[in-house]
Formats: sequence, C-alpha cells, structure tokens
Amino acid sequence: MLVLMKKDATKEDVLRVREKIETMGFRAHEIPGAQRTAIGVTGNKGKISPEHFTTLSGVDEAIPVSKPYKLAGRDARKENSEINVGGEMIGGRELAVIAGPCSVESWDQLITTARAVKEAGARFLRGGAFKPRSSPYSFQGMKEEGLVLLREAKAETGLKIVTEAKDVLTLPAVADVADIIQIGARNMSNFSLLEGVGDLRTPIILKRGISSTIEELLMAAEYILARGNLNVILCERGIRTFEPSTRYTLDLNAVPVVKKLSHLPIIVDPSHGIGMWDGVTAMALAGVAAGADGLMIEIHPHPSEALSDGYQSLKPERFRELMEKVRRMAEVLDRSLAAEVVQ
Amino acid sequence: MLVLMKKDATKEDVLRVREKIETMGFRAHEIPGAQRTAIGVTGNKGKISPEHFTTLSGVDEAIPVSKPYKLAGRDARKENSEINVGGEMIGGRELAVIAGPCSVESWDQLITTARAVKEAGARFLRGGAFKPRSSPYSFQGMKEEGLVLLREAKAETGLKIVTEAKDVLTLPAVADVADIIQIGARNMSNFSLLEGVGDLRTPIILKRGISSTIEELLMAAEYILARGNLNVILCERGIRTFEPSTRYTLDLNAVPVVKKLSHLPIIVDPSHGIGMWDGVTAMALAGVAAGADGLMIEIHPHPSEALSDGYQSLKPERFRELMEKVRRMAEVLDRSLAAEVVQ
Amino acid sequence: MLVLMKKDATKEDVLRVREKIETMGFRAHEIPGAQRTAIGVTGNKGKISPEHFTTLSGVDEAIPVSKPYKLAGRDARKENSEINVGGEMIGGRELAVIAGPCSVESWDQLITTARAVKEAGARFLRGGAFKPRSSPYSFQGMKEEGLVLLREAKAETGLKIVTEAKDVLTLPAVADVADIIQIGARNMSNFSLLEGVGDLRTPIILKRGISSTIEELLMAAEYILARGNLNVILCERGIRTFEPSTRYTLDLNAVPVVKKLSHLPIIVDPSHGIGMWDGVTAMALAGVAAGADGLMIEIHPHPSEALSDGYQSLKPERFRELMEKVRRMAEVLDRSLAAEVVQ
Amino acid sequence: MLVLMKKDATKEDVLRVREKIETMGFRAHEIPGAQRTAIGVTGNKGKISPEHFTTLSGVDEAIPVSKPYKLAGRDARKENSEINVGGEMIGGRELAVIAGPCSVESWDQLITTARAVKEAGARFLRGGAFKPRSSPYSFQGMKEEGLVLLREAKAETGLKIVTEAKDVLTLPAVADVADIIQIGARNMSNFSLLEGVGDLRTPIILKRGISSTIEELLMAAEYILARGNLNVILCERGIRTFEPSTRYTLDLNAVPVVKKLSHLPIIVDPSHGIGMWDGVTAMALAGVAAGADGLMIEIHPHPSEALSDGYQSLKPERFRELMEKVRRMAEVLDRSLAAEVVQ
Repeated sequence: MLVLMKKDATKEDVLRVREKIETMGFRAHEIPGAQRTAIGVTGNKGKISPEHFTTLSGVDEAIPVSKPYKLAGRDARKENSEINVGGEMIGGRELAVIAGPCSVESWDQLITTARAVKEAGARFLRGGAFKPRSSPYSFQGMKEEGLVLLREAKAETGLKIVTEAKDVLTLPAVADVADIIQIGARNMSNFSLLEGVGDLRTPIILKRGISSTIEELLMAAEYILARGNLNVILCERGIRTFEPSTRYTLDLNAVPVVKKLSHLPIIVDPSHGIGMWDGVTAMALAGVAAGADGLMIEIHPHPSEALSDGYQSLKPERFRELMEKVRRMAEVLDRSLAAEVVQ
Repeated sequence: MLVLMKKDATKEDVLRVREKIETMGFRAHEIPGAQRTAIGVTGNKGKISPEHFTTLSGVDEAIPVSKPYKLAGRDARKENSEINVGGEMIGGRELAVIAGPCSVESWDQLITTARAVKEAGARFLRGGAFKPRSSPYSFQGMKEEGLVLLREAKAETGLKIVTEAKDVLTLPAVADVADIIQIGARNMSNFSLLEGVGDLRTPIILKRGISSTIEELLMAAEYILARGNLNVILCERGIRTFEPSTRYTLDLNAVPVVKKLSHLPIIVDPSHGIGMWDGVTAMALAGVAAGADGLMIEIHPHPSEALSDGYQSLKPERFRELMEKVRRMAEVLDRSLAAEVVQ
Repeated sequence: MLVLMKKDATKEDVLRVREKIETMGFRAHEIPGAQRTAIGVTGNKGKISPEHFTTLSGVDEAIPVSKPYKLAGRDARKENSEINVGGEMIGGRELAVIAGPCSVESWDQLITTARAVKEAGARFLRGGAFKPRSSPYSFQGMKEEGLVLLREAKAETGLKIVTEAKDVLTLPAVADVADIIQIGARNMSNFSLLEGVGDLRTPIILKRGISSTIEELLMAAEYILARGNLNVILCERGIRTFEPSTRYTLDLNAVPVVKKLSHLPIIVDPSHGIGMWDGVTAMALAGVAAGADGLMIEIHPHPSEALSDGYQSLKPERFRELMEKVRRMAEVLDRSLAAEVVQ
Repeated sequence: MLVLMKKDATKEDVLRVREKIETMGFRAHEIPGAQRTAIGVTGNKGKISPEHFTTLSGVDEAIPVSKPYKLAGRDARKENSEINVGGEMIGGRELAVIAGPCSVESWDQLITTARAVKEAGARFLRGGAFKPRSSPYSFQGMKEEGLVLLREAKAETGLKIVTEAKDVLTLPAVADVADIIQIGARNMSNFSLLEGVGDLRTPIILKRGISSTIEELLMAAEYILARGNLNVILCERGIRTFEPSTRYTLDLNAVPVVKKLSHLPIIVDPSHGIGMWDGVTAMALAGVAAGADGLMIEIHPHPSEALSDGYQSLKPERFRELMEKVRRMAEVLDRSLAAEVVQ
C-alpha cells in the first residue's frame, strides 16, 4: 500500500498518516517527492482497505502495490530520484563518472590515477581497499591502510570517494571514509550487509549480482530503502551467460527497464561488463546512449602491473579520450558532463 | 593458411598462387582488399609450409591461421568490408537502417509502413513472407503472395528489400525478390541453408543464434564466405539468458568484439533484443554508440493488430523520432545517416 | 480443443467428428489411445463451443486446451506412448539403448562397434552419415557412402539403425536406411525439416536444442505430430549454460517434467550431456534413475582416433560395464533391459 | 606446492616440514590421509623449488599445483574424505539423508517432521532458523527461537541438526546448536562468512551458488579449508539457466566432475534443484545414481501451509516412499542406507 499525499498536505497531515499506520501495527516509510510525499506501508500480510487513509486530511490516494518492491518502484515516486553526494548530484541532467583503480595498491598509484581522473573532468574516485576475491590466496586489498590513502587522495584532489564494503565488520571503517559505499555484485544478496548500509544515510552504489534478475536487484535496493536510506544508486555491471569471449555480458537492456520500473538512478560499469580494455570505450558510450546516469570505469597508470583487473583497465590518456567522447554524446542526449580541468 | 599478396602483385601472380593451391589438393579463396589481395587456403588437414608460397612471384607473406575462421577474420582482410546492396553501401561511414513489419500482412499494411520508412530516411524495407514460428498453428506468413507485395513496394518506393529465407526449397523464390536475404537466428546453424546462400552472390544478413557464441556466428559466416559469397552482414539480435523481464538480452559487447575479430559489418536489432517497444529507441541508440554499422527495426502502423511481434513494434511516428536521434548521434560518432525525405 | 471419444465409440462416430471439424474449416488429428481415441482440433483462431461436438454420438467430452501444444500433451493421451521400431518398443517397460560412433568412418570401425553394441545387449546402432559441423572445414560425414555401410551393418547384426537427417534434400536417402531418423539439436527449430519428417511415418528421435526450453521441445514435437507422424521420441542431451567444465549441462529435470506434461517417450544422451567419457556412466545411470525410457551413448573402438567427439566416446569394454550397471538398476526401477548376448 | 610425506614418516618429519615452510614465510596446511599426510604450502607468489623439501627426512615428493585450489583437490588427498558428524560419517559407503522443513515454524511443525524423518531412516534434521529472503517483507525465520526448537528436537529424537548461518553476527548462536552449519547458495561467495566458519571445526555444508561454476565452488571450499576446517561437504542444489519450467536446473554433471577433481563429499538437494514436489523423488534417485554421497530433502507435514518453499516440499509419507526407493538403489550402487526405524 502506498499513501499519496496531496500537494498542499501539511507536516501534521503526514504525521497523522504515519501514526495511523503504526497504530495498525505496520511500518511507515516516508518518500519525499518534488510534487508530493508518498508514504509506503509495509508489514501487512493481507490487503488493507484504502478507506483507512483516504478519509484522513491531506491524503490524495491510497493505492495497493502488487509489485514485490514498493519503495523502489515508480508508483512510490514518479520523478527520478537525484542522490546528493556532498553537493554532486547523481540521477539528474549531469552524468556522473566514477573512475579509478580496481584496488588501491600504493600512494603513488592512487594519486597518479586520481589526478588523471580529476583532469579528465570526473568527480568521483573509485578504489578498493577491502577486495572480495575468488581465491583465498589472492591479494585481498590494502584494507585499513587503503582507506587512509583514499582519505588523503580526497584531501588532495577534492574528488568524492567510492569504495566497497565487503562485510558488516569492516563497514564502519569504510563508511568513515566513503562518500559512496559500493556493494559489490557478490554481495547483492548479502541481506545482513544490505540492512547494515540501510541503517546509514551514506549514498550506496548497489551492483547487480552476476546472475540476479532486474527484479531481484530492485528487491535488494528495497532492503536498503526499507531501513530508511533512500540514497541508492543501481549499477549494471554485466551478467553471466554462455558467451566465453567476454568476461560478462553487459545487459544494457537493464537501463531502460530500470528507468521504467524505478525512480532510482542507474549507472553502468563497462570495465567489468566486457572485461577487456579495448572494448570499454564502446560500451561506455553505449551505456550513456541507453540512458544511464553515469559510468564507473577502471583505470590504472600501468595496467599490466595491476594487482587485479589489469586487463580491463584503461590508461589515463585513453580515459581522457573516452571522457571527451562521452561529453560530446551527452549533449546530443540533452545531458551534460563537467568540463575537463585545465592544468 | 592465408597467402597475402604484395600491393603490386599482378593478376597472373594471383592466378599462379591459386593454381599452386589447387595442385596441392586444397581450395583457394580470393579475398580482395583495398590495399592488397589475400588468398585463403582451406581443405588442408595438417600444417602447410609457408615456403610453398613465399617463393612465388608477387607473394608478400604466408601466415598460418590458428583461429577456426579464416575468411571472416581480420587476418584475411585488415580493412572493414563494405557490402554493396544495389548502390547502397553497408559497413562504411553511412549507417544502414532497415525497418518494416515483422510479417507482411497486406498491401495496405506494407505500403503504409514502407512510405513511413522512406520518409524517415531509411533505405531498406524489411518484411517477412516466410515466417518460422514456434507453433505449427501460428500464422506462417503470406509466403509467395508476400514476396509479390514486397516486389511491388520496392517498385513504388525504391527501398531495398530485406526478407528471410527459411529453407532451401523456398530460397530461389526469396532470392528472386530480395536485395538482402536474411538468415534468421533459428537458422544460423542450418548449414545446408548457409551453403545455399553461399552459392548466391546476393548480400546476406546473418542473425546470431540465441545461444550461439560470437565465434560460432563467425563460423556460420565462414560457411557462406567459403562458398564464395563475400557479402555477409552480421546481426546481433539478443541472446537467451536467465533474465525474464526482457524477451532476450541484447549482447552489445558483440559489436566491439566482432569489430576486433572480423572485417564484416555488424548491425543491431533492438526490437528483438529487448522485445518491448518502449525500450527500442534506447537500445537502438546504444547499438549505434557501441559501433554498429546499422539497425534493424520493427515498425507497424497498428502494433496492437500485428499478426506477430506487435508488442515490440514501433509506430511510424516514433520511428521518425528514433531516426532523428540516431542522425544526431551519428554525427558525434563521425558517421552519417541520410536526411529525412521532405514530403 | 480436444474431442475425447467414449470407450465404445465406433469408427463411424470418429468419422462423423472428423467431418464436423473439417466442415467448420479446421483440421482434425486422430490420436489413438489404449482406452479411447482423442481427436485434436487445430486451425481455429478463437474459442470453439464444446456443444458442437458433445451433441454428437460417441463423444464423451470436448475440452479446450490452453497449452500451446495439443497433440503432444497429456490431455490428448493419458497413457504413455510406446513407439514401435520394427518390433522393438520404446517407451514401455523395456529400456532402449542406442549406441555407436558419432560418425560412420569406415566399415571396420562401424562393424567392430556394432558387434560390441549387440553383444552388450543393446538393440539400436547409431552412426552419423551426414554430420552438421560448426566449421565448414571439418569432416562432414561419409554421406551416402555412410548410409550404405549402416545398411550393411544392419544386415549383419540385426540392429536397428538410428541416423541423423540434416536437411530436407538428403532426407529421402536417410529415410530409406533409418529405422529411426534423428533430428539433431541444431535442427530442433528447423521447421521445414520437422514438417518433412512429419510427413513420414518412420519413428523420429527429436533432440532438444541446446537453448530450447522444454515447452519449445514439445512444440517442435507438435510440428511432427500435427503432420500425422505420431512416432516421436524426445531426447535430452544437455543445454548451454555458464558452466565451462562440461561440454553442456545435462538437464535431467527435463525427464520428470516431460513425463508430467507429455505422453511421448524421452531418452537421455549423457555423451553430449557431459562431454567427457569418464562422466558418461554416472550420467547414464542418473538418466535412467530420473525415469528416462532409454539412453543414447557414443562408443568408438579407438576414441583417440575418432574423427569427431572422441573425447566423449566410451570404449566397447566400458560400454559393456555400463550396460551391466544399467541392467541392475533397471530392476530396482521396475524396468528391464535385454540380456547380454552370449558369444 | 604440495609436500607429500612417505607412509612411514614420523610426526617429527611432518613438524620439520612445517617449520621449514613457515621459516620461508609461507603457510603450512596439514591434510591427513589414510595412506600418508600431505602438507599444502600457500602464501607463495612465485614458484618454489621442490628441492627445499625433497631433501628433508620423511618427504616423498613435492609437487607444484597448477589448479587454483590446492587443499580441495585430489592432488592433496587421493582418498575420499569422510566427515565425522558426531559419529555419523558423510562421504563413505553410507548415504547421508538430511530432511526437514525449509523453515522452523513451530514446535508442532518441527517435531512432527523430525519424527517422520527419523522413522523413515534419515539421521539428519534440517530446518532454517535464520532465513535469507529476497524480500525484506517476507518471513525471515524464527531466529534464536528457532534454534531453541532445533535443540529440543535433537534432544528428543537424537537426529543431528543441520541449520544455516546467514551472517557472521549470528554465526556463534548457530554454531552452538548445529551439528552441521549450512552455508546457503547466496552466501557461497560471502568470503567473510567462509572465513568465519573456516575458524570453527564444525562440519560445513557449502551449497553451490546459483551461478557459480564448479571451480568457484571448490575455491569457496578452499577458503574454509585454508583456515583449518577440513570438514567440508559440498552441495549441488541447482543453477540458474534459461529454462523457466523448473525453479533451477539441477546440474548433476557436477557430481562426477567434483568426484574427479576433489576428495570432498558432495550431496544433492533435489528440492531446490527442480522446485516442484512431484519431481523431487525422480531427481533424488538421479542424484544418488550419479554418485552423490547423500541427499537434502525438504519435507513439511502440510506443504500448502508452509511459510516458505511449500511447493517443493514432500509430505512425510512420500518421503518414506522416497527413502525406500533410495535404499533399494543404494544396494545396486554398492552403497547403503540405514534401515527404517520400526515403531
């Protein structure tokens, strides 16, 4: 059930609806919108009669929701959500570009990359400190030390930091440094971790699991939204299929489908999505053309020496070329991308 | 083995190489290029020593080919192949747009659609006369009668005709009308049909099978090329995955991968690739941005009354909008699209 | 619509129903059963009122069929279909074992294998004469010459011959030799070929396409049944998934699902299904335990020298062991397997 | 690197090898075998020369391991591992059957089911207390209260308890009650949780992720083994494919493949693997025939009222029939299953 308030509903009207919901033993989720506020009702097992709410002051409509996700759906919010990351908005006209190395490996590697990211006009620096790896014997990231380096890179460049939380135990340390916390594909259905980040208010990038349906992605977002963190950015990063010549199959269909079903922003990660550096630019452009709100790109000053994902990482100069192409394409699509920083 | 001729090699040089190959009991396949001619050798079981050829006049190099496809690969031809369809080129700077109904249903339906296709600036009319359908009880196309209507639509509009050959028996009738013969996804591994169209010189659109790898698509093209028909255009139209919310998963990764591996043009069919009309424009733009040489789009004057694929068909006015967007995007990508026809 | 006749309905009753159906402009398909005859009605677009038939003499019930397949479904026939192959029954208590080389390569290879097949107690010899291959440069089978050898092997051993028809053009030659015509996985949706074998009365083994759903397999069978050939045996042989360590993923779930939905027999091909010889016995036993009506096994006297599929072929002595295990398992499942032939 | 000790090597010999490994800065993992002990070396980046070890007393061989898993592989241990669960062995001649409800719902539901499980001859009771669910609004299990009921059911019936740990935070509570801790498919790549159970010595059932390859399953096991918990039982429970008529595709190929690559036991969960109760028995038998060491079956006294997975749960009487069939089949396969308990 979604209770839609009138445009001129007062704070008291909203409060009364919330109290009514709680009195009935359910949970109320307030979803502010540009035009009007929606209040999601969860916790009910059967149907609730709309009359419980439509008779209250300030209520416009009470509509039953048949989709399994309520807060993530377009019914809950007609307008696109824009997520505020310390002043940078994701989900609006401006495209968000997040770039950086797969793993933080050293100060030199990180700051060289960060400067290239900034100069090319991107505003977000990615870098993994805690790395979930298929093998227990692989490099697992610089951990806390990596977080320290990310904080310093932020201080020096002003870039916003995007880094992954791989479990509940290290989440507080990650949350302390990150402007956006990334939930990796392997953790998309780690519901305890989703609840953990749902209790924060930090923006979250939620990557689609490699065998998760779009509906399951929206349900995972719902876990976060239902705890009150409305700052969720979805990320398509490729699914597992039978095709062996690429690392994953980037499912760009997900972009228009998510845009239709949900108000949440969605970005595209072409680096994992194709898994080979010489296909990244083509797929980045394709992602933007499909309607994505941004890109996440792996770059490395010396890809062949990277401790992880070197094969799919761009060199800084190629990233700069990519940004120039995205900038030109953005205009055609009535979107924008910040100008390159003059040195 | 590929024998690469020098730039200044004479016709006699080429002839001598061919004779040498045939004398050895193998088959020679001449692949003309802008810079120089390559001659593919097939039919050998073991390795052939390059010295058999490098000692001949006009021969530059003789290189063993380890990939399973020889004639379709970049080794055989460095430049992109451009396919000449009665004066319209596919694979060059100009984007090719093929549009029309899934099935030819009536003269009215066809000519209304054809005019809309032409007015929007597209140069190729698609329409199925022989339709392979999952159910023996479904509409199987207007068959020969449909071919007659396609011929008339061509006479009236000047559009080139793209229509599917579903088997060897009806191939001659189809070939008689078609400017481009389409091999559908279900027939990508119908090797007898591939051999049949390999013996023609009509351009072929070869659609990727829904569970075929990119390598298998190139091997299917090889079947056609090996019979001497070099006019092959590949088509990505979506693969089958676990995702249930879209009809197929359009694998746009295939575009940069094919461009890297092969000299053949590749176009994208977003109508089947996403399977819902309100996602077609986004995925058409994404396909062009990924580097495709053209698009194949299903349109219908009254989608809800279509005998097949109505749900994924655009109305003519939406197709016109799509063309306008593609036109603007083409410029950014240093490509072009013919202007809209003024009425 | 299915018209179910009473147990005591006469031939005249059946004839009257057929005439009524044809008068209405539809097609009638008679499906004889142990208890009673069903008559499938196809060709109608909208619903037909049951009263058209229930008022006729000898008619028990007229039930609308909502599934896309009519003749292949359990509604059309409650009992399991048993297919008579020159006296050998497939689909009854006795398990059918079909064994032999992937391709017929020589008389020696074929007759050695055939004798081993017979001695181990199997009754059907498989061997491909026309081979659909991914590469135009691979061995394409001995063709007509292979058919001649199969006929001779049958004459010498008495084994029934199972061999593949790869296209409509060579179908008559294949049909002339085969006791069972195999339609390979790549041709499951080659509807022209399905119609071709539908016009024969020879038993057909219809292999599931590597990316075909179970419903699509039943629809392909429906193509054959709808032309009047009721002798269809389905075959699960593995589907394409993301798992790289096996050639295909043998989907044994298909066995109980097909048994629930359809009256047609289903056999299992573990050789393709796992694609490695040392897994074939385990998966053959699993197939039988899942309820399959038989097995199709690739064997070769010298697997390492096979021109195709050597890696998944059993040596004759291992096949004999496999048969012994299947025989013991058959008893536990209340089925049987013919005794080993004493030399 | 694996260091294989001689049969007559002493404890001191083993100790010396371990010390040598640690002195080199690497980690030593002792893997006891029936014939001889192997010591895995991990933590090295480059190759290690075998001479470091072959010159030590008691060392038979030092072999480099090219597979990404070391401790889980057959190289590390030739014989099958048998896991001791409080006296019940899993991985030997006796088949292990684990049965019970998806979720613990009440004492009545649990104890009724537990008695049925015991009477049918199974020795392990499954029941989820902490349930990972796709929707935040679905029943998430009885949590701690469920654990209490499981402990009581064990006290009353003597059955061993199998229950899932869904995160690190609740792991201690689960470990306190469980005889075997289950790691669910969604958590197969939750490496923090794998490390958590790796630090215990409780036997672990590790379910294959729905889109995980067999190699990834073995790598996940390696995470647990590398922390010293050698009591790992693998579980095939179905993978995600394109087939829509079953919940998952039970990949029984995994059974012979795992048996070839690894010494760890593997069991099969046909309930999730096919997802419909009337296919469970067929697939349970198929799993045993393929060589599985046991089964995990969902049963419920009133499936239609189950709070989760009711559609795939067997009624107790059908489970008893299934056990009877498995018992007969076990004999044919030279395995055994405990007798039914006489009431």
